[in-house]
Amino acid sequence: MIRVAILGATGYTALEAIKLLLRHPEVEITAATSRSEGSPHIASVHPQLARRLDLQLEDLTPQVVASRADCVFSCLPHGVTAAVMPELLATGVRVIDFSADYRLNDAETFAHWYGEKHHDPDRLGNIVYGLPEFFRDQIRGAQLVANPGCYPTSCILALAPLVRAGLIEADDIICDSKSGVSGAGRTAKLTTHFPECNESLSAYNVGRHRHTPEIEQIIGRVAGKNANVIFTPHLVPMDRGILTTAYSRPTKELTEQQVFEAWRDSYADEPFVRLVEHLPGTKDTVNTNYCDMTARIVRGRLLTISVLDNLIKGASGAAVQNFNVMFGFPETTALI
Amino acid sequence: MIRVAILGATGYTALEAIKLLLRHPEVEITAATSRSEGSPHIASVHPQLARRLDLQLEDLTPQVVASRADCVFSCLPHGVTAAVMPELLATGVRVIDFSADYRLNDAETFAHWYGEKHHDPDRLGNIVYGLPEFFRDQIRGAQLVANPGCYPTSCILALAPLVRAGLIEADDIICDSKSGVSGAGRTAKLTTHFPECNESLSAYNVGRHRHTPEIEQIIGRVAGKNANVIFTPHLVPMDRGILTTAYSRPTKELTEQQVFEAWRDSYADEPFVRLVEHLPGTKDTVNTNYCDMTARIVRGRLLTISVLDNLIKGASGAAVQNFNVMFGFPETTALI
Amino acid sequence: MIRVAILGATGYTALEAIKLLLRHPEVEITAATSRSEGSPHIASVHPQLARRLDLQLEDLTPQVVASRADCVFSCLPHGVTAAVMPELLATGVRVIDFSADYRLNDAETFAHWYGEKHHDPDRLGNIVYGLPEFFRDQIRGAQLVANPGCYPTSCILALAPLVRAGLIEADDIICDSKSGVSGAGRTAKLTTHFPECNESLSAYNVGRHRHTPEIEQIIGRVAGKNANVIFTPHLVPMDRGILTTAYSRPTKELTEQQVFEAWRDSYADEPFVRLVEHLPGTKDTVNTNYCDMTARIVRGRLLTISVLDNLIKGASGAAVQNFNVMFGFPETTALI
Amino acid sequence: MIRVAILGATGYTALEAIKLLLRHPEVEITAATSRSEGSPHIASVHPQLARRLDLQLEDLTPQVVASRADCVFSCLPHGVTAAVMPELLATGVRVIDFSADYRLNDAETFAHWYGEKHHDPDRLGNIVYGLPEFFRDQIRGAQLVANPGCYPTSCILALAPLVRAGLIEADDIICDSKSGVSGAGRTAKLTTHFPECNESLSAYNVGRHRHTPEIEQIIGRVAGKNANVIFTPHLVPMDRGILTTAYSRPTKELTEQQVFEAWRDSYADEPFVRLVEHLPGTKDTVNTNYCDMTARIVRGRLLTISVLDNLIKGASGAAVQNFNVMFGFPETTALI
Repeated sequence: MIRVAILGATGYTALEAIKLLLRHPEVEITAATSRSEGSPHIASVHPQLARRLDLQLEDLTPQVVASRADCVFSCLPHGVTAAVMPELLATGVRVIDFSADYRLNDAETFAHWYGEKHHDPDRLGNIVYGLPEFFRDQIRGAQLVANPGCYPTSCILALAPLVRAGLIEADDIICDSKSGVSGAGRTAKLTTHFPECNESLSAYNVGRHRHTPEIEQIIGRVAGKNANVIFTPHLVPMDRGILTTAYSRPTKELTEQQVFEAWRDSYADEPFVRLVEHLPGTKDTVNTNYCDMTARIVRGRLLTISVLDNLIKGASGAAVQNFNVMFGFPETTALI
Repeated sequence: MIRVAILGATGYTALEAIKLLLRHPEVEITAATSRSEGSPHIASVHPQLARRLDLQLEDLTPQVVASRADCVFSCLPHGVTAAVMPELLATGVRVIDFSADYRLNDAETFAHWYGEKHHDPDRLGNIVYGLPEFFRDQIRGAQLVANPGCYPTSCILALAPLVRAGLIEADDIICDSKSGVSGAGRTAKLTTHFPECNESLSAYNVGRHRHTPEIEQIIGRVAGKNANVIFTPHLVPMDRGILTTAYSRPTKELTEQQVFEAWRDSYADEPFVRLVEHLPGTKDTVNTNYCDMTARIVRGRLLTISVLDNLIKGASGAAVQNFNVMFGFPETTALI
Repeated sequence: MIRVAILGATGYTALEAIKLLLRHPEVEITAATSRSEGSPHIASVHPQLARRLDLQLEDLTPQVVASRADCVFSCLPHGVTAAVMPELLATGVRVIDFSADYRLNDAETFAHWYGEKHHDPDRLGNIVYGLPEFFRDQIRGAQLVANPGCYPTSCILALAPLVRAGLIEADDIICDSKSGVSGAGRTAKLTTHFPECNESLSAYNVGRHRHTPEIEQIIGRVAGKNANVIFTPHLVPMDRGILTTAYSRPTKELTEQQVFEAWRDSYADEPFVRLVEHLPGTKDTVNTNYCDMTARIVRGRLLTISVLDNLIKGASGAAVQNFNVMFGFPETTALI
Repeated sequence: MIRVAILGATGYTALEAIKLLLRHPEVEITAATSRSEGSPHIASVHPQLARRLDLQLEDLTPQVVASRADCVFSCLPHGVTAAVMPELLATGVRVIDFSADYRLNDAETFAHWYGEKHHDPDRLGNIVYGLPEFFRDQIRGAQLVANPGCYPTSCILALAPLVRAGLIEADDIICDSKSGVSGAGRTAKLTTHFPECNESLSAYNVGRHRHTPEIEQIIGRVAGKNANVIFTPHLVPMDRGILTTAYSRPTKELTEQQVFEAWRDSYADEPFVRLVEHLPGTKDTVNTNYCDMTARIVRGRLLTISVLDNLIKGASGAAVQNFNVMFGFPETTALI
């Protein structure tokens, strides 16, 4: 039995991680933290967990967390994460980090896009990015895995193999992405107040969404080329799901068959990437760890469409997949 | 031209009132108040109003408001309303009050259900309830009209004529009501955060919703009998619309025809009540000032179903209807 | 390994059953039938199943189905079901029937509510009703189990223990139920066309919904009394979830504590009934096999609220629970 | 009073047109046609119209229609439209055509994209395109106006002035468009069945949507250049609204200010185009005839976002605006 602790357990990604882990035959959830006063039972925050997980939310030090767990799922916000991580890692516990703090290569890029100084800059540059499709071997032995962002997963899975294979230009990529509202987290705000965002569609953070450098750096790392991506996120009135419509420029004449072949080279043995001929909808993947993708050539441009559940393959399912890799379990355990 | 001022203009009922009044050929909106800092343009709060209403939100005294307006649409919250009303009414300006402060007969009932002392108790008991279907003559000459609550309108319109006609018992009424989320107002809260209430249905305030005494008192006032109502509100994942399924006990054997006849006695000349044979959906009335209703006898019990748009017939449309009555315009002006 | 066949595999309940069974360590799905031409792959009908279930939809005789399976999940429509059941049962295979054909006690009631003659009337009266909370012992040995309707489960679980304990009158019960749209099945109709039912709420089949006699007969069977229920279903713009607000009359003065005690007498050891103090939302149970319920006394009347996922505890999860009981597996297998 | 007839009155665009025309002080709706049997009352098809329009749906010849009307709003499907139009126009009646039949320049393009022969090819090439922002003078005197498609309006209004001003390349434009489900019409299909498209997002008709040549031809007509557009439509789980995110390549270095200036050159006096600095949501324009748009320069590429209500500015509101131009009424009549 692997003992797992959840840091920052009041949010949606923590809830999804817990629901998946409850199905894992080799996992025991031993702690769940939050700053909530009075150590409330977790079911009072997440009624879905009533009678499924008998734990109280506690405000614990990294040392106590580490003493109770073999693996920590850290669902703390960015900024907060890097402030506690050094102490946590010093205990030797293994960590899957849901925040953005360790996804980027360097502290300057972090500071530029996140508007604040990084609290643990020296560790950057060596952290394993938790996308098993490309970094499985590194994940296996890592102490700290940076779990990917939801949008980046949808973009990188579709595009990285094609850039790597030299089929498309790395510096002329447009990712027009659309996400359900759970991606905005669990804090009530006017923009996510039901009567504001229901029955409406809007773009947000155009040209300055923080997932932009993550997409570029990881495509670059996979393909060995500098990528330049215009990334436009949109808020869609639905709970979950991301669909990314990516427009890229072929390096030379390109067929849809060649795209599928390049994808098959990368994904033939991957359990959670499905190449489909039809145009996939986000609902095809909802509540699953799959990413479905297809390709079309339109007027000489390549158009790829990739869909996934932002809370599963885009967050908590990916974390469980990483956990399985890290601890030597079959990769689909708890994920089917 | 009648000059109209809107108090508390940042909420949804104010927005709907403004959109209706912009269609009124005899109205000029001359002021819109809020406590927002820096007098922002109203379109910065309500982008829907861009280029339709060129006004800044101002923090104005009752005297200044009254100097600019012949009629005030007061969309302030309960409690706050009764605190400013004496000063406002002293100026002689006519007021349509969207809050609950002047709807009840007495201060004790208010204190019991609202959990706070009434700020203007002496005025209670004489305020006109703004339901033209029953109180048109009083509305015509009133200085202050208490605009009805959204749920009460759906309950009272269906039931009051039947209690008055002696067709159903006044003391054994169940109103199972369902509302869209805009009824909860524009303040962001966890319960109305999109991923919480979307794709979910729940009851709330069971047995203690503040509209209960309003429904009972007005049915009592119309029918001259003490009414006893179990009122259960539910939150439905949609923007607008209320549907009330009311279960009542016939005083003697009753047919659906008799119910329709009693309704026709009350509503034959009413422009905004539609008696329908089919089972109406809230969408039949959305964005309109209509209330649609039908009746079924099921196993000896009478079941009525009434639907309306909570922001129009349940709030701002009713206010404009009252305004038309008060100022002598055709009652449907700006409401078709 | 238990071999399972799915009859009528193109609908939503079949899809949910398959998704649950794929998690069952002791189940192999060996056949899926439909009348679709050309034996399409099941993933072409249900893209969610791509790479999860490699089966073609086939048009098979009952004999062939039985030769391939130890247990049949029959998701055929009512009417059709009773026409094939005799042949299927003659093979000795065990069957969990999702249709309404074998839920009622007698053919006359069936004919009255369903408007057609029953095809297999002699079998009625002896069929086990698949609600383990009340009929677990009978389910264990049954060849044919009639899987409950979605609405009835939400009504019966809340009310049957209370009628049995003599706490409420059996003949004065109102069930005001609200359901997501998946309950209407997968056939495209104008009433379930997105722009018609989205952002709208309506009642349907008032006084004549076919689940009425099922609710009455099963409450009667559990409690040994004739029940009389007014059942009103409503269509809610969401995918899944049922909430039933039931109003009943206490036989004598009653407290909420007494209601919870009676429920605990029935459900203390039940894995899938959760008694909660808060007002539950359907989302608390979505994608799970739980039924959550609470109680309030309002003005001398008992009000119970019960929520469940219509496709899981209201259909496919209940079927898997029945399957576990029938084949001796732990009852929660594949359901956590 | 102008007498208006509605052809094909059972669909959503007809319903919206009627609701707008009911507010027009100079319009009388004198006929509404459909092939429905038995001349049902229009309110039996559109319950929203109960007591608002007392008309029966009739199956009328073009001659009878023309004898009752000064202007025809033709909401017939494409193909059917061009089959009846010659007879209708021969009567001299003026027509606003909602179909696609007369929007394209030539019959070959029509045949290529619509997959069928055009029934009235000789008339093509001379039909006025009903976008008053660019063709007001021609609309004024036209007998037949081709009312624009919903997607094209959102694309053309944003892009045509910029191509015309030489700010962006005409041959490297991507329009990533997202639409609510009402755009798919009122015929129930599996793809628009609520449980299929709710809570899901998908692209459709990628590379082959019929609005592609319309966008290209009209931008070309306005700007005098051949346009080449990649147009990708997506289905969003909401009733109404279109948002188009367009990516184009500046001809030389470009600022957002220059974009707004070019737009102001075209739209300063336009009543229904709103240039906004914030990122607009579709809800800002829902139920109105406005198109809101903004611009951002991202990594050297121009990104424009335009939103409108597909049933109003994208169909019926545009038709009423055209009607006002054709018959000399103030252009905003019935549209505020």
